[in-house]
Amino acid sequence: MIPKGVAILGSTGSIGCNTLRVIESLGSKRFRVVALGAGRNIELLADQVATHLPEVVSVENEEAASDLRAMLFERDVDLPRIVIGESGLVEVATHPLADCVVSATVGAVGFVPTLRALEAGKRVALANKETLVMAGELMTRVASESGAELLPVDSEHNALHQCLRGEQRSEVRRIILTASGGPFRTKQKREMKDATVSEALRHPTWNMGAKITIDSATLMNKGLEVIEAHWLFGFAPDQIDILVHPESVVHSMIELIDGSVMAQMGITDMRHAIQYALTYPERHQCDLPPLDLASLSTLHFERPDHERFPCIGLAYEALKVGGTLPAAMNAANEEAVRAFIEMRICLTDIPHVIQQVMAAHDSKPVTSIDAVLETDRVARVAAIKVIEKLMQNNRIVAEKSV
Amino acid sequence: MIPKGVAILGSTGSIGCNTLRVIESLGSKRFRVVALGAGRNIELLADQVATHLPEVVSVENEEAASDLRAMLFERDVDLPRIVIGESGLVEVATHPLADCVVSATVGAVGFVPTLRALEAGKRVALANKETLVMAGELMTRVASESGAELLPVDSEHNALHQCLRGEQRSEVRRIILTASGGPFRTKQKREMKDATVSEALRHPTWNMGAKITIDSATLMNKGLEVIEAHWLFGFAPDQIDILVHPESVVHSMIELIDGSVMAQMGITDMRHAIQYALTYPERHQCDLPPLDLASLSTLHFERPDHERFPCIGLAYEALKVGGTLPAAMNAANEEAVRAFIEMRICLTDIPHVIQQVMAAHDSKPVTSIDAVLETDRVARVAAIKVIEKLMQNNRIVAEKSV
Repeated sequence: MIPKGVAILGSTGSIGCNTLRVIESLGSKRFRVVALGAGRNIELLADQVATHLPEVVSVENEEAASDLRAMLFERDVDLPRIVIGESGLVEVATHPLADCVVSATVGAVGFVPTLRALEAGKRVALANKETLVMAGELMTRVASESGAELLPVDSEHNALHQCLRGEQRSEVRRIILTASGGPFRTKQKREMKDATVSEALRHPTWNMGAKITIDSATLMNKGLEVIEAHWLFGFAPDQIDILVHPESVVHSMIELIDGSVMAQMGITDMRHAIQYALTYPERHQCDLPPLDLASLSTLHFERPDHERFPCIGLAYEALKVGGTLPAAMNAANEEAVRAFIEMRICLTDIPHVIQQVMAAHDSKPVTSIDAVLETDRVARVAAIKVIEKLMQNNRIVAEKSV
Repeated sequence: MIPKGVAILGSTGSIGCNTLRVIESLGSKRFRVVALGAGRNIELLADQVATHLPEVVSVENEEAASDLRAMLFERDVDLPRIVIGESGLVEVATHPLADCVVSATVGAVGFVPTLRALEAGKRVALANKETLVMAGELMTRVASESGAELLPVDSEHNALHQCLRGEQRSEVRRIILTASGGPFRTKQKREMKDATVSEALRHPTWNMGAKITIDSATLMNKGLEVIEAHWLFGFAPDQIDILVHPESVVHSMIELIDGSVMAQMGITDMRHAIQYALTYPERHQCDLPPLDLASLSTLHFERPDHERFPCIGLAYEALKVGGTLPAAMNAANEEAVRAFIEMRICLTDIPHVIQQVMAAHDSKPVTSIDAVLETDRVARVAAIKVIEKLMQNNRIVAEKSV
């Protein structure tokens, strides 16, 4: 048995670290890490390099590269080839020994490397939903041309992939993405306005990075997932539904035309979805504790509240209009989330920023990478302007109230 | 498109009537009723014959046959061929125009006709779980020799069939049959002892015939289903689990070796499972209301209580020992349930009767139909003796207490 080569974009993030744990548990006969891409967490990256001995490692810039070299030298680890920047990530994503590329960078930075991995015909285990939101049409076209497989690592889409295994697409009536509802599920609109960053980062069921946790608090995460599901599985917007399920045990469901509903359930540990994406179509033994429904005892379901969570509606709108609008929405969201984390705007300003940017955006067909990147750039500038205006207004309100 | 021929054993029962409704809703281009077998409900049978115009109809005896003839003559319906008794049911089950035989008689009476349908290579949509309990090894051997398909109509097994569609058997860790828990789920042992027949017939979620409803009250129904699941899907007894789920929304689940759990859900209407068994591998549009999890809001799960429901343990024991023991258990259960419905014994006597018959039974390999039928006969005689003794004791207790 020749081990399959794995490259990881974003190896020091939550998904990246979990991917390495999965690979360790599956054993070196099955999988081997051939390339790692990370940003600035050089200490952790050095540990990963020392353990997995990849051929190529990519970091953010030259400074990070020399830090990594120094650390590895100190530990007496043979130096891998060290590359930097976007071109470095592309080298990781297209490494000739990589059969599978785990795309787990946060936000738009993973877009080009992931596209290159698909062009190279790699299996892409996709945790970076922003790439599909920005350019789903382009990505899926490239994948179908090269024969690359796109396996979702997002627990909801991974669940859908599992539900769809034995089914004909034409016999599926709709797909149902479950949502935990986030930390503000039961909160009033006013409380959401005053929410602090640490409150918003307190996710009830999943332990994830900051960006996705804030997206979960606004339910934009679910909006992004609606768009992601559209591109992954080809369902129309009105065939994609959202159901709030606070326990996050049912990861998602499909409803067949005969009324039958197939659901995938599991514990809330990303290693399940990562392992599935690596080993598909096979399933391998996993030593994580099994789901114990009797101990959980109760599962709840409720409809999402579009009024308190306007990001859901914005995402459906972006998907229906199509073209570059989802990319603009995604860029505005990234900027707004960053501004919230930096305490420049409040949580309920996030949908406002996105809505303003979307309203001003003139959607065009996605013809090339450049069109997407240009949309991303322009939308960020527009979002920053809206954010600055909001900050000004907030200052005026604050000064008046003093 | 040539419509598929359907024969129904037990057409006037709950499953039989629902099968006819499903066939009507699927349309005459897809399915055509070619043969019906019923017992003594001749009025309803006459309606069914008038509507569906089958070629052959089987009734219990000559008297029922002449009643049917008279009714059809009165209504000016062309007479089908009318046959009687077990040989009549066999004729229905092996009708040359029948592609699919729905086996929906209650209890042991469907055994031989169902076996003949399998020998004839028909698809058998099996609602009569007793046949598999009595002679699962024989039935599955006959089916694999003739190439006949065995499609479960029991909602739990139908759910398992759906969950297993896209999976490899070797990658399934265990299957999990859900159980509503019946009307005595939350009752004390003492309350169960005093339970009246009408209390036991009050099933919380499913609307079914009397025998299966009493079996649901003792959880013997789940025990029978464990044995049924073993023969349908080939899992070992320790790979088959039971989970109490009072809402009966999750019809059953499988757990894969990677820890993923796939569940099939739906409303509690048998037409779903019947339609699935008829149309498999296709799925067809169904106009029943969809499952609305948000309206249901809450699903509960708990472990079954083996102490209050000893029938579960008896069924596992019968399955593990194998041979003719499950047939003996099934016969004892049928007699005990009948005695309870006729108010000769109390509900908690049912497991006692079964246990006594099983303890005295000397299990032998199931080599032939005759071995099974002889076991059935002998076990019934033994059960009746235990029941009579119980009645005597109860009388003594009653007299003493006066």
